[in-house]
Amino acid sequence: MGPGPCNPYPEATAAFARPMLGHLDPEFIELLDEPNERLRTVFGTANALTFPVSGTGSAGMEAAIVNLLGPGDTVVIGVNGVFGMRMCDLAARCGADVVRVDAEWGQPVDTARMLEAHPNPSMYAVVHAETSTGVRTDVEELGANKGDALLLIDCVTSLGGLPMDLDTWGVDAAYSGTQKCLGVAPGLSPLTLSDTARERIKPVPQSWYLDLNMIAAYVGSDGGARAYHHTAPISMIFSLHAGLGAVLDEGIPEVIARHAACGEAIQAGVQKLGLKLFAAEGHRLPQLTSVWVPEDRLPGSATEADVRSLLLSRYGIEIGGGLGPVAGKVWRIGCMGNTARLRNVELLLGALDEILD
Amino acid sequence: MGPGPCNPYPEATAAFARPMLGHLDPEFIELLDEPNERLRTVFGTANALTFPVSGTGSAGMEAAIVNLLGPGDTVVIGVNGVFGMRMCDLAARCGADVVRVDAEWGQPVDTARMLEAHPNPSMYAVVHAETSTGVRTDVEELGANKGDALLLIDCVTSLGGLPMDLDTWGVDAAYSGTQKCLGVAPGLSPLTLSDTARERIKPVPQSWYLDLNMIAAYVGSDGGARAYHHTAPISMIFSLHAGLGAVLDEGIPEVIARHAACGEAIQAGVQKLGLKLFAAEGHRLPQLTSVWVPEDRLPGSATEADVRSLLLSRYGIEIGGGLGPVAGKVWRIGCMGNTARLRNVELLLGALDEILD
Repeated sequence: MGPGPCNPYPEATAAFARPMLGHLDPEFIELLDEPNERLRTVFGTANALTFPVSGTGSAGMEAAIVNLLGPGDTVVIGVNGVFGMRMCDLAARCGADVVRVDAEWGQPVDTARMLEAHPNPSMYAVVHAETSTGVRTDVEELGANKGDALLLIDCVTSLGGLPMDLDTWGVDAAYSGTQKCLGVAPGLSPLTLSDTARERIKPVPQSWYLDLNMIAAYVGSDGGARAYHHTAPISMIFSLHAGLGAVLDEGIPEVIARHAACGEAIQAGVQKLGLKLFAAEGHRLPQLTSVWVPEDRLPGSATEADVRSLLLSRYGIEIGGGLGPVAGKVWRIGCMGNTARLRNVELLLGALDEILD
Repeated sequence: MGPGPCNPYPEATAAFARPMLGHLDPEFIELLDEPNERLRTVFGTANALTFPVSGTGSAGMEAAIVNLLGPGDTVVIGVNGVFGMRMCDLAARCGADVVRVDAEWGQPVDTARMLEAHPNPSMYAVVHAETSTGVRTDVEELGANKGDALLLIDCVTSLGGLPMDLDTWGVDAAYSGTQKCLGVAPGLSPLTLSDTARERIKPVPQSWYLDLNMIAAYVGSDGGARAYHHTAPISMIFSLHAGLGAVLDEGIPEVIARHAACGEAIQAGVQKLGLKLFAAEGHRLPQLTSVWVPEDRLPGSATEADVRSLLLSRYGIEIGGGLGPVAGKVWRIGCMGNTARLRNVELLLGALDEILD
């Protein structure tokens, strides 16, 4: 129950045992199309270029930024936690001018302020669900008013756990991770680009590994023959394929409702235990609950880290600590993928009740 | 029996089913040290910074180049196939000046010519085992005469299949892939940097995902506390850990001897069938045999691609086609990892004998 990785769905784990196939084997190429189509469904997009990047979530962030930004571009980035900061770092490494619009940690980004921050940026970028704070920022206002700019959103923690409708929202590029609400091991980063975004891919991005000009020819978004770029992580793709299958078999609304029910139970339960929630009301993620560490309730001379160690060693439950300015001050309780079961919520709440004074 | 991925060792596949652990869980952090130590053993190095990059082999290539080269640096790159060309592409994207020393495809790189190509480069770089041609280039001469330059080698196809002794050879940086002679699924790229190389890591490499300044603080090469960088691909690391365990249990000399025996059997067998080997004698890789397509022996109106399709559909054997200038002209027969068994060699030779006129 940390901020990710979640426990994977059994189907996702079992799929790792599928016999190996070559990355140009016709059987694999056929299979490769299926997770891409399933990703379109969970993202809520018809984007042809939708596929898992061969790396964890930050590789997806880098793929989006390095292909779409370069010297001479201005990007307006909303920052209300670690992952917004990471976007700024990455955009600067690409030589882009970064206009940073900060919000207090625990609060959503004010997207109206982002729109006012620069007259004609190349891109607006914001984190949909901030893993470092447990806050949701709604992006529709950006999508409706972006003008000629692209809209990039980080869906690492939202995809599969919140309703997603990228095309309706006007999102041009989005990336995620497999190890959160999709219920798969970490290792891949689902990425999607609109046709408008594709037209703005740099001719020679500074990364070769993440060069979408070349990768598109392998993942087959144009329907042509598949050209080898790099060896795909075959077994991870088998696992993602199966994990997405489990999500779609259960039904996206049902999976989202399960995440919501677990999040409500956690947030009600920890408040009943006397803890205070960190994230702003109305913007709390069900899949990631942030709470203030109850300094006066820590047992004996225990630190907050001791409590987390005790949860892990005695109850087998991992929860996360705070990052950045709230390190040591908040806990982050994830409930995603196959971990999002009420029995896990009950166990956590019971354990916290036993441990805290 | 393509040029990779190989069939993984059963231990490597089974390890995918290990229960998920968080990337900061003390149990995972402890486990993380073990594959790194095992990689030092197979690389033949004592380098503290030795770990699997969270991506496939080309991510390791990019990690090495992007951290060690930038504008103002000159790199001398030996090119005798696709992967040497890829190094040139990557180095140019980093803004380095590339001095390219070409060799004919099928021949090793002339390392003496590399040494004469520039008076004081920042780096020499060459592919140890060219997957596109099946050729080994010995690197000791570069290591002995590199002066102040770093020596980077691509070991994607050699690691685990040829004797490796990086420290004796004077190699400063090397990367590999899990899906070749290590007998693990594709998805990770073992990377090692000498202390000399580490001192030359750029303060802010153009890649964030592959920034070794930050990654070193997570993989723990300095023995300090572990700082989160990106979520590690946990299950892939479990699998690598187990695959390396299988290699070390069998014994590195024994694993190399098994690859050598299979390679000899393939190369003798295909010659007995009347085929001609493509790679230069004395530099042939046992784990990857390249042969000229026997145009006069193709059955009926079949193309070389038809023969490969037939091998796959009728016998369940994948072999690779040629790349670049030898596309359509050579076949590449891999025999790596758990595929390197004489029974597989027998089946392939029997199948070729049946198919060819």
